[in-house]
Formats: sequence, C-alpha cells, structure tokens
Amino acid sequence: MKNHLENIKKASPIIHCITNYVTINDCANILYALGAKPIMADFTSDIKEITSCCDALYINIGTLNKLKIKSIKKATKIANKSNIPVLLDLVGINASSFRLKFAKKLLKTRKISVIKGNATEIKTLYLGYKSVAGIDADIKDKLTDKNISFFVLLSKKLSKKLNSFVVITGKTDLISNGEKTYLIKNGHKLMESVTGTGCMLGALLSAFIGANKNDMFLSCVSGLFTNGICGENAYNRMNEKDGNASYRNYLIDEVFNFDEIKLKEGAKYEIG
Amino acid sequence: MKNHLENIKKASPIIHCITNYVTINDCANILYALGAKPIMADFTSDIKEITSCCDALYINIGTLNKLKIKSIKKATKIANKSNIPVLLDLVGINASSFRLKFAKKLLKTRKISVIKGNATEIKTLYLGYKSVAGIDADIKDKLTDKNISFFVLLSKKLSKKLNSFVVITGKTDLISNGEKTYLIKNGHKLMESVTGTGCMLGALLSAFIGANKNDMFLSCVSGLFTNGICGENAYNRMNEKDGNASYRNYLIDEVFNFDEIKLKEGAKYEIG
Amino acid sequence: MKNHLENIKKASPIIHCITNYVTINDCANILYALGAKPIMADFTSDIKEITSCCDALYINIGTLNKLKIKSIKKATKIANKSNIPVLLDLVGINASSFRLKFAKKLLKTRKISVIKGNATEIKTLYLGYKSVAGIDADIKDKLTDKNISFFVLLSKKLSKKLNSFVVITGKTDLISNGEKTYLIKNGHKLMESVTGTGCMLGALLSAFIGANKNDMFLSCVSGLFTNGICGENAYNRMNEKDGNASYRNYLIDEVFNFDEIKLKEGAKYEIG
Repeated sequence: MKNHLENIKKASPIIHCITNYVTINDCANILYALGAKPIMADFTSDIKEITSCCDALYINIGTLNKLKIKSIKKATKIANKSNIPVLLDLVGINASSFRLKFAKKLLKTRKISVIKGNATEIKTLYLGYKSVAGIDADIKDKLTDKNISFFVLLSKKLSKKLNSFVVITGKTDLISNGEKTYLIKNGHKLMESVTGTGCMLGALLSAFIGANKNDMFLSCVSGLFTNGICGENAYNRMNEKDGNASYRNYLIDEVFNFDEIKLKEGAKYEIG
Repeated sequence: MKNHLENIKKASPIIHCITNYVTINDCANILYALGAKPIMADFTSDIKEITSCCDALYINIGTLNKLKIKSIKKATKIANKSNIPVLLDLVGINASSFRLKFAKKLLKTRKISVIKGNATEIKTLYLGYKSVAGIDADIKDKLTDKNISFFVLLSKKLSKKLNSFVVITGKTDLISNGEKTYLIKNGHKLMESVTGTGCMLGALLSAFIGANKNDMFLSCVSGLFTNGICGENAYNRMNEKDGNASYRNYLIDEVFNFDEIKLKEGAKYEIG
Repeated sequence: MKNHLENIKKASPIIHCITNYVTINDCANILYALGAKPIMADFTSDIKEITSCCDALYINIGTLNKLKIKSIKKATKIANKSNIPVLLDLVGINASSFRLKFAKKLLKTRKISVIKGNATEIKTLYLGYKSVAGIDADIKDKLTDKNISFFVLLSKKLSKKLNSFVVITGKTDLISNGEKTYLIKNGHKLMESVTGTGCMLGALLSAFIGANKNDMFLSCVSGLFTNGICGENAYNRMNEKDGNASYRNYLIDEVFNFDEIKLKEGAKYEIG
C-alpha cells in the first residue's frame, strides 16, 4: 500500500481537529501515536490562521454547539480555498435531525474529501431522517454478511453523488471511490466498548490523507488497515483482568508501535 | 439484589449524559464497561430527540455554562414528560452559590428520581450556602463513624422533603428512600485521588435506574456496591509503581469484568 | 530544594484551573497525583467564589472561546486582589494572533507570577507574531545546545521586562527570575508524543507556587525537576509493547509516587 504510513512519519502532517469534547484527548494522542501533529482549536478567532497552516482538517459533529458551528463553517471554507483535504465524521446524524441538516448543508456548500459514518449514519444521510437508536449503529442497520452487498452499492452511489470518498464503519469497514469499494476485514468487536474508537479513526484517516494528498483513496485504505489491525493486536495484548479502559490504552500504543511490515502482514480485504 | 446488573447487560440502556468536560470521557467509558450506551449531547438543538430516546438522564452540574443550562432545563422537562428517570449530581454546590440556586430551582420544577452529592454538598442543599472548601467534601463535613447517624437522619429527611432517593457519598456511601437508609461499606480511599470517580458513579447509577425502572431504589444500592467493590478490587490489582492514573484504568476495567457473583460476595452494608 | 514537594502534600493547595478541554482530565489527575486539589470551573457565574478560595490560579489559553475569555479576565482580577499567584500558559500564541493579543493584554493589566511557554511561544511573545509552525515549537526555534545561550538571555530580559518568572520548556527547561536562569536538564523526548504534557506541567507548577508562596521561584525549579525526572522514570518503566498512551499513565503514576529523595537524586541542572 505504497508507504502511506511512512509518509506520515516523514512529513509529520499538522491535523486541525474540530471535534467533540468526549474523545478529544484520545484523538490528539492517536495523532501523536501516528507521528502526526494535532491542533484542536475550535474558536472562530483562531480558525483562519490555524486551518491555513494545516495539512488536513478533521470535522466531527458530536457535541456540536453554536460556537463550533461557526468555526466549522469558517474552517471548511478556508480549507477548500487552500486545497486542504477535509474529512467529515457524521457522528449521530441518525439521532439528531439538526446534525443531519447541518451535515447536508455542509456537503452542499463545501468540498469534502472523505465522508465517514457507521451504517446507520450513512443510511440516514442517503435515505433521510428516521427513528432513533442512539449514537451507535442500530442493530438492524449493522453491517452483516447478509446486508453487505447493499452497503457496497450504497457506498458507490453515495460516493458518486457527493463526489467524495465514503467510509462506512462496522464489523467490516467499507471505503468507496464510486467505482470500487474496499471491504476491510480487520478489527475487533471490543472496539465498540470504548468511547471514541470511531472518532480516533476519523482523526487517524485525516492524517493519512494529509500526508498522502495525491493518493487519498488508497491512503484511507491503509488507514483502515492500521486501525483494524491495531484493534486486533490490542486485543491480543489483554490479560484476564483488563477491560475496556486498558484496551483503549493498548489500541493507542499499538498505533504508536505500528509499521508498514505489520500492515502488510495483517491486512485482510476484498474488493467489491 | 435481584440481578440489577444483569438487567443492564441485557437491556443495554441508553444513558443521556449532560456532564462536565473534565471527566466526560470516563463517564462514557464506565457506561460501556457496564454494558450501557452513553450519549453525551449537550446542545439545545439535539436535546429533544436525544433525551426522548433514552432510558435515563444523567445531569452533572460541574463546569456549567450558559449553553448547558438551557440544555439541562430542556432535557429534564422532556424526561419528566416521558417518565424517563433523572439523576442529579450536585457537583460543587458548596463552592458556588449559582450552582446551588440552579440545583434548587431544578428540584422545585422537575421530578428528580435520584439526588447525589458528597456530605458537604448534601449539607449545603439542606442547610444553605456556607463557606467554601473546594469541590471535595470539607474535612469537617466528611462522613465519619462519629457523624454517620447525623447523615443517616439527613438522608431520610431530605428524601422525604424532595420526594427523591438521596445518595450521600463518602467513606461510607448512604442511600435513602425516606424510610430506610442503606449504609454501603465498600470502596477504597484511593478513589478520592482520581478525578471523576464521583461523576463516574453518577453515570453508573443512571444506568442502574435506566435498566431497573420498577426497582430504582434497590438498583441504586446494587450500583453503589458495584462502584465500591470495583474500587477495592482495582486497588488489589495495583503494583508498587502504579499510581492514580493506572488506578483509574483498573477501576473501569473492574466494572467491565464485574458480575452478580462478585457483587454478592463483596457487598458490605448495614441498614439505618 | 527546601521541601517544596512535601509542602504540597501537607497543605493540599486548591488549584483553580481555567484550561483547555483537550487535556483538562490529565491536568486534574496530575494535581491529585501531587497531593493538590483541582477545581476546573470556567463559568463566569462560578468564578468569584471559586477563585477566591484557591491557593493558585492556572490559566491555559488553548481552546479559548468567548465564555472562557470572560472567565479568565474575572478570575485573574480576583486573584490579583487576593494575592493569589497566577501562572499563565501561552499555549499556541505562535499559531494565533488573537491568542497573542489576548495574552499581551493580560500581561499588561494583571500581575502574573509565572509565564510559561515553549521556545517558539516565548520568542513570539518577545519578538511579535510571525509565521506558524503549529502548536508545538517550530523546529528551528527549538531549544538546542547551540541556541541555549540566546534563550537564557531572552528569559532574563523577559522576566525583568514583565516582572514575572519566565519558564521556557524544551529539551532543556529554563526558568528565570531576571537575575538568574536555571537550566533543568531532566526530561525525556517521549513527552513530546503525548498530548498535554505541557499543560500538565503548567498545572503542576501552579501547585508548587500555591503551596510555596514565599519561595515561588525555587519552588518552580523543584516543579521542573519533578516533571522532568518523572518523565525519565516513566520511560524506564516502559516495555516493548507500550506506546504513548501507557507512557501518559506512567507519567502521572510517577508523580503520584514521587518524593523529595527521588527529586534530590535525579535533579540535573546548571545556572546561567
């Protein structure tokens, strides 16, 4: 996969994150673990200078508020002007029609390089606002072996429609460029028992696109492998007394110690 | 104690938390550790849909601000209409007359199922605003063997007056329904050296009431046992190089691995 | 170094922190690790009562916003009136002209006991706003063996000019009272791979000045030793699977288990 990870370690891309306060610390630490540099500013007065100096912009709409909405509008505008890639993480658009509306407007008025969500969130974006099953993917909407072909098709359609790469996370992670969809078969179910694994993945993918601007699609594939394999390795490190708190630390540690060799050996995927 | 913990694991209750940003990550992870699902939204535009879909609402008034105050008012109103139980955590009402006033108004205008505070906070609620000794319990107000009968009486009076279950945390944790007060003799003093052990307990108790709506009082007793015994077990896991950071992780890990058997074996209490 | 650390353990100083939400949890836990008590309130309505009861005030201008700006102005005013020492952490003033302007105004209108920044931030404060290299120190501005004499001179000049103690962090940490500059040769480079090591140092130094009001300068020297030696010891505790997440926990754990003997044995410094 063309040394996408090594490119991060060489370039130390600066990733501007406007993200939720629940997992903001984890997002910063996973970026450091990769060799990238986080800047977490979300105050409008800071945006112009900070977004301008960044290699990628990560937007996460969990715990939105009025101040952040202004900052997101401003930062994405600047990023677009300066050709800085933007990743939009659709946290909770299935649970809040306000967030859905905000995300849709952003997608209409800004160039978003990568859109990311779980199965429920992506389905909500495509099919509209429905009933609520919390922030996590609704069980009946979860990616399973049975419905995977539906989501492969959805990822392609959405990618073409929005002119963005589309990431759908779940037991299998998908990423599509409209023509092809990669099905990433790595990861561990314990990742669902830690807050912020989705947000950390969003920040991590932002570092991959920030350091690989001419190969964004495949660099996201590398990013999904990194995340999934580290999730597996972190599980293998656990002893019987460990739980989700230790697992969170091991996950970040694994990213810190990850390299191209581990990636190549661990990657499992299909193309759909 | 009637499988209150197992009920959480079966039902995976969704707990809407409006809480402080210091410990919001820990609150989310302890809910996952229990088998519950956290949603941490605090933006007014999100509240209606998110509170409505939840099984319990956890309100923590540490690091309040204007935006959160609006959200708390709205969320508690919706919770009351939909018979969703509310737990109010009185963080720092001894240190800020504004917070005390806000808490009192909330208690007058909303149905609060469980009120929680340390000895100083509960005393402040009952007797009014006094001098300040920080967020933690004032030393002379700490629950000790000597003053315990005073706080047992206070818990009963307050519970009757406010028509809520009252939790008073300390070396011994108390919970009263106005008639009876349980004195929970579990826990470890190292819990005082970690930020957020009180907040995590508030989130944890919210999961217990959310999954045991017809047995809220005794489910809180089970919740207090869970918290206290996990605090003891986390201490037993420590080695000589560990400090409060590792202890925090062990505490969440212990909740992740906790079960009804450990609860029954470890529970120490009296009834007052 | 005159038992500055023991004085914290004896006095349990209350440290009011108005700080960024990225690392606010770590700041609270490092204060507990030292034996101090954190209060993290940043709502204007809480400020008067909370600042008044504190032993030191820690101001960190990462992730500023409108609400926090008001709180910082109010809190520093109250601290000055009550002779409560204030530490100002210049996070990101090289990356945002707004933050630089705000910091400068604060320095003009308030008595700040200790000013802290990395080499780039301190240079920006002295020489004015330049180009941006992210929140971290610009590589060419990093403290090295070659440019150290420049920064020793700068620390003295700035300290005299602003009538504050000046801390410059880097591979070597400097602190100056205008006459003398201590060069602290402790620490480990892995501290740069964890978010919040700078913020935690700011909170930690606030505890040292809060418990040693009559010896603030030398207590900061002790604080810098504590931070640096704990960083070294935390590294020595790491095994091959550990990464930056475990290192963060070990760092706080080391502070929890630190004492005067370890400090005396580990301290490396010169005076410039």
